[in-house]
Order: sequence, then structure tokens, then C-alpha cells
Amino acid sequence: MKLREIGEFGFIERFSPEFKSLLTQNVTGIGDDCAVLPMNESEDLLVTTDMLVEDIHFLREGITPRQLGYKSVAVNLSDIAAMGGEPLGTFLSIAIPPEIEVEYLDELMKGYREISAKYKVPLLGGDTTQSVKHLAINVSVLGKCPKGMARLRSIAQTGDVICTTGYLGDSGGGLKVLLEKVAPTTDSNYLLNRHHLPEPRLPEGRFLQDFPGVHAMMDVSDGIASDLKHILKASGKTARVHLDKLPVSESLRKVCEDQRWNVEELATGGGEDYELLFTVEGGQLEELQEEFLRKFNQPVYPVGTIEEGEPAVQWFRNGQAVTFAKGGFNHFL
Amino acid sequence: MKLREIGEFGFIERFSPEFKSLLTQNVTGIGDDCAVLPMNESEDLLVTTDMLVEDIHFLREGITPRQLGYKSVAVNLSDIAAMGGEPLGTFLSIAIPPEIEVEYLDELMKGYREISAKYKVPLLGGDTTQSVKHLAINVSVLGKCPKGMARLRSIAQTGDVICTTGYLGDSGGGLKVLLEKVAPTTDSNYLLNRHHLPEPRLPEGRFLQDFPGVHAMMDVSDGIASDLKHILKASGKTARVHLDKLPVSESLRKVCEDQRWNVEELATGGGEDYELLFTVEGGQLEELQEEFLRKFNQPVYPVGTIEEGEPAVQWFRNGQAVTFAKGGFNHFL
Repeated sequence: MKLREIGEFGFIERFSPEFKSLLTQNVTGIGDDCAVLPMNESEDLLVTTDMLVEDIHFLREGITPRQLGYKSVAVNLSDIAAMGGEPLGTFLSIAIPPEIEVEYLDELMKGYREISAKYKVPLLGGDTTQSVKHLAINVSVLGKCPKGMARLRSIAQTGDVICTTGYLGDSGGGLKVLLEKVAPTTDSNYLLNRHHLPEPRLPEGRFLQDFPGVHAMMDVSDGIASDLKHILKASGKTARVHLDKLPVSESLRKVCEDQRWNVEELATGGGEDYELLFTVEGGQLEELQEEFLRKFNQPVYPVGTIEEGEPAVQWFRNGQAVTFAKGGFNHFL
Repeated sequence: MKLREIGEFGFIERFSPEFKSLLTQNVTGIGDDCAVLPMNESEDLLVTTDMLVEDIHFLREGITPRQLGYKSVAVNLSDIAAMGGEPLGTFLSIAIPPEIEVEYLDELMKGYREISAKYKVPLLGGDTTQSVKHLAINVSVLGKCPKGMARLRSIAQTGDVICTTGYLGDSGGGLKVLLEKVAPTTDSNYLLNRHHLPEPRLPEGRFLQDFPGVHAMMDVSDGIASDLKHILKASGKTARVHLDKLPVSESLRKVCEDQRWNVEELATGGGEDYELLFTVEGGQLEELQEEFLRKFNQPVYPVGTIEEGEPAVQWFRNGQAVTFAKGGFNHFL
């Protein structure tokens, strides 16, 4: 049997039950953005790790080494943000093919240094090794958050409003700009930039972790259609999501019109936006929106609600139920 | 400029100074077996990470998947052992080429589970992804040790005796058995086993961390000729090492005789033994040897001394200074 027949999650499900008996108390292991371990009387420890492999996650000619270094750290810091945590340090393992120039690596480390300095996170160790052909970059990040306060995927409550911290689909649009070689315009460049230099929502994550009534949280890495399912499965709830409320940037809208791309498909299924997806008690939403806007000069976007029911996303457009099929979202027949 | 011109350590030296300003107080970053961070009032946190890449660190037909899974964890637990620590959890990132069978991965995870259970270390998270051609496995391990008691490389003292916890060169011998297709005998199989299934010296490391007078410690991953230099550089000392005192297994001696391999070269330069290399105050050696033997039913092997001087290893055979050149150790001309 090949891996593609069961997928990444199928593989994880094959071995993870076997490991459960080794778990110690008060530890959250496989299945959230970060693992959570007891650290001291007032704080929990957070750990996350992500691997970027050449020709799978990036093309060497499609992203500058500085951007690649920046993004390698950003995607991991985003997992710390998704728990409402503060990063403590990063670890870099890098497998380097023989023909790569040291100058390329210098640029990569410049990008890595840039985001490390921006969020004041030290590089604490790692492993440098050769590879035969493809560049592979694994970053692990340690973080911390107030004890028992990590925003797990499993704690969404019925009646919660589902929100995101920013535009959806930009990064997926940027990837299409790259792959389909769309001519550079202000809009297509904005999308490319969102794809190459995602910004981890660390201050936003800490604010949300601390805000009363915020429950489950995760980052949008595979697109909300897929990501939201993890929250629903972990929390044992269903969701109603309104396509017409999904925040979409003007640039993505324009490029989608020009290129005849399906904007709803990108907003729900495009990956790597690294915005935060969270649920908040209905009664707290207005206060949260006001405070968030005041603090970050950015709105939060309510896109749906958590309800009792099977862990699946129910989609609506202008109040009418629609379903996703090849080619886009359609009304039920 | 190509990476091979400056090497792994040359690359690390290019970027690590730039990152120093981001280091927070009481944190040991790049340059030891583990990073050390404050955790709580009585304990420090240890973190290590290692990447194994197909056709660089292993050949897929040269090691069974079960062995590979076991070894991926072992080499990282060895870094925790080298600080005198206790492992808390592991994180696995794995990049999988498309043609690999799920059954191969099941076996790999069986080996991973076997060593995890043996040392009671839970698997807490990771990342599963595709690769184009080569299997790549990155394991990160978290551990802890009593506050301020991590056995750093930088704390060797003049007058310390240099010791190892076991035979040197077996794993390097096993690699040669594999590469040169030596016929299977009890001895060559023993060497192969030492190469494929290294045992992290965790109980030994914790005992040594706690034993009065034990100073610097690390694990033997590249061979003591190379590894000892890290202790000497970090501590600002020189070393005298006696080739005739290096512990060599009977099996390695026999296979070296049969195959006309240079046994000294393997004992000093063969990698991946994952024994502990440590320094202890001269006056404490005897007591340490007795207690270690009683506790582990294994001797520790004194192989040399730490002295004032330039960070380099001075080699001796039967009391006479020798020097290493192509072909082996020779008396100075």
C-alpha cells in the first residue's frame, strides 16, 4: 500500500494510538498546533516543528533564499501564535545539496535572522548536514503560555462565533500567480508577497488567548475548509460558515476576476494564509471586535458559528445552503 | 563558494555570531549537545535535534526500517544523555518519497515505538510530508536536568581524567562491514548491530551528571579525535590521549585483523559509537570507577588527561608521542 492511499493523517492514525500509553499526565501530544507540557507553576511549554522540502513545499527558483529563511521560521511561529503563546527559541535542521553556494545559504540565514530579530526569538541549536539533491529545512520552536491557557482545538463551544484575523486565500492566490506565471501587477505582487512572507500573528494570538470568551484557536495552514474540520473533530461540534462573509482582499478579488479563478475556492481551500482561526462566545464578540480594532488597527472577521452536530462544515451563501463540488460551491440540487 | 570548502562548522560560524545578540540570560545556545534553558526553580530544559537523510546517513537497503526508526531516536536521546538529562518527549518530522510502502513506515514506527517504550519517552508531535526522492527524518527531543547541572562541553578542568563509557570504533567497524560487504560472522554481526542499534547511555549519563567531580561531557558521534576537540575548544585546554588505553572490543580487534583494517584509526575516527566521553577530577576517578562498575556492571575507561595548553589532542602509544597521518598513527619523524 502506498502512502497516498491513506494520506498524511491516515499514516498518523496508524501509529499514534500505540504511543498513547507513553503519554504522561497534563501533556497534550499529537493533534494540535503545538504540544503542551507542564513547565513551571505559572507557565506551560509549547513545542512545534515543521519541515519544508524543496520541490514539495517550494521551488528553488520560485522563492528567494531570504524569503525562504523568513518563511521557514514564520510558519512555525504561527503555530505558537495559534496557542496564544510567546516563542522562546528556534532550532534549525538543514540538509543541503552539494551544489548550493554558500552565498545562497548566507541569504537564507539573513531571512531567518530578520524574522528572529523582529519577534526577538533566539536560534538555539540545530543540525547542518548534506543532502543528495533537495534542500530540506526543519524548524522546531519552543514557546510558553500561561498555565492551562493554551488555546486548544478541542475547546470550541456551541454558540461560539468563528472568526479569522485577516484575509483568506491570498497565499493560495500567490501560489497560483507563481505557478501560472501571471504578469506582475501591484495586485499579483501583493499576493506573491503574502505567499512568500507570511506574518505570524503572535501579538494577536496572545491578545486572543487572554481575552475572555475566546475558546478554540488554530492557524490557517491548509485552508479553512480543511483546518476548521480539525477544530470540529476535536471539539465534537458542527459549523455553519457563510461564504459571503469570508474576508477576501481587493487584490485577490481583482486577480481572480482577471484570471477567471474561483475566489471562493481560494478563500476556503487555499493554504498557507497563517491567519488565526478562532471561536469566541457570541456575547463577547462585539467587545472583542472593538478592542481588537483599537489594538491592532485591523478588524476580526466573523465567518460562521459553532453548533451541536456532526463534525462537518455546512456552507451558506447569502443565507442559502450550498455544497462544494468540483468547480466550486453550488446550491443543493 | 561551495559548502564543502568551508564545511558544516564553517557554515555555522558564518551565521551564529549574528544571532548572539538575541540570546536571553541563562540560556546556552548553539555549540553543545543540547541547548539549555531555564524551566523552573529546580530544573533546566534541554533541547536537541538531529536529521538523518537517505544516501547521506543511511542506505535504505543497508538498514531495516525498524532499525532506522530505533536509531533516529537513539542518536537524539544520546544528546540528552550527554548533558546528564532525562528525556521528556520526542518530535518526529518525516519527509517520505512517493514509492515507499506504508508497511515500510509501519516497521519504522515500530522501531521508534520500541526505543520510546524502553526509555519511557512519549512521541509528542511532528510533521509528516512528502519528499521527491529521499527519505529524511528529523527528530527533536526535549529533556530536563537539575538546574545549573547540565554537563557542558566547556567545563573540563586541568588535571581531569578523560573517560569513555564503552568500546570505541565498533560502529565505524560496522559501517565498514556494511560498505565492504564483509561475510557475516559473530564478530561482524556484533559490529553491524552496534552500528544499527546504538544504545543511548541515559542511566549512565544521569549517574555521571550527579557524581561529584565529573565536569565536561558529550557523546561520541564523530569519533573521539574530532569530538574531544569540541571539549578542548570550549574549555580552552589541551589533552593527552593514550592509544593503548582506548577500549576496543574483541570483535573489532578480530575483524580488523582479518580485514587488515587499522584498529586505532577506527577507535579514534570512527563515528556513531554514542558512548559518553567525559572528564572527571583525578582524585575522584577511583571511586567513580568502583561505583560505576557496581551500578552498571560495566567499567569506565580512562583514556587520557586534560592539561593546560592549546585546544588539540596529543596522542601517545605506550608512553611515546605519536602523530596521525594518512595510514595511521606514527611516531614523530
